[in-house]
Amino acid sequence: MTQQGLIIIYTGNGKGKTTAAFGQALRAAGHGLRICIIQFMKGKWQTGEAKAMAALADRVELHIKGVGFTWQQKNMDEVTRAAHDGWELAREKIASDQYDMVILEELTYLISFNILAESEVLEVLRSRPPRLHVLITGRNAGKGLIEAADLVTEMHEIKHHFQSGAAARKGIEF
Amino acid sequence: MTQQGLIIIYTGNGKGKTTAAFGQALRAAGHGLRICIIQFMKGKWQTGEAKAMAALADRVELHIKGVGFTWQQKNMDEVTRAAHDGWELAREKIASDQYDMVILEELTYLISFNILAESEVLEVLRSRPPRLHVLITGRNAGKGLIEAADLVTEMHEIKHHFQSGAAARKGIEF
Repeated sequence: MTQQGLIIIYTGNGKGKTTAAFGQALRAAGHGLRICIIQFMKGKWQTGEAKAMAALADRVELHIKGVGFTWQQKNMDEVTRAAHDGWELAREKIASDQYDMVILEELTYLISFNILAESEVLEVLRSRPPRLHVLITGRNAGKGLIEAADLVTEMHEIKHHFQSGAAARKGIEF
Repeated sequence: MTQQGLIIIYTGNGKGKTTAAFGQALRAAGHGLRICIIQFMKGKWQTGEAKAMAALADRVELHIKGVGFTWQQKNMDEVTRAAHDGWELAREKIASDQYDMVILEELTYLISFNILAESEVLEVLRSRPPRLHVLITGRNAGKGLIEAADLVTEMHEIKHHFQSGAAARKGIEF
């Protein structure tokens, strides 16, 4: 009997959501699972995790569909278009039954910014291939998503060196 | 000028501490940083993250020094000996100045179980090469560690499918 796929959410205001998602991909890839990661908010600059994932390209697919965080963007149309493209891709990948795990990185922001309805996400989760694990990250995961999830962790910021004025650095924040 | 290394702690009762640590290693490795990971509690069974890290073996060293979680162990002497061995290795690796990041996976349990004094850990952190990032995971990180850290995230469990009786599965929990 095939095991039921899980819905996993990493939310909250603390650091560690994206790294936990990529760590989960790494763990799953190590056991030979096939993973598709779609990043909804990251821009075109290359993160360390994206570069490193190239070493696992036979098992991990990475799609960057964001155009950067919206507060860095003048053109909201461009943000919205990229988000919808990303979501269309996510629907296809989820329905394809070609993966064991699909990671929707920072998907919650699309819901927060009213680009995508939570009900539409819930419908796609409900109708996914039963064995598929879906991992969703981003702040402020809504009640509907949390209700639908099997595992929810809130990353809660206790302390952050940015507060003391340090700059983002390679290998730590990106 | 070399940037100051950070002390990062992932603590709390929620899932995502180990995956976040490995995701951080992946991110750093993608930028060519050299990383040493020491796992203090994991036993000899192979996790997905350990298998996948083999693809990055030119940049990531992984040492498994634990003998499994103590509550599975009859012989506490064996647990204590493995923990001390691991800590000796950690001190050497930290002092060697051969790495950009050292990850001490589940180190906090050594302190909780009175195998290692927090003051000893703090002394090693204080005297480390200034540029070295150190990432520590495990529940119940103490006040001294949190005080010394630049970045602390508490992974807080909101919901966990184990509560509804599911078994641990490959690629998800290990």
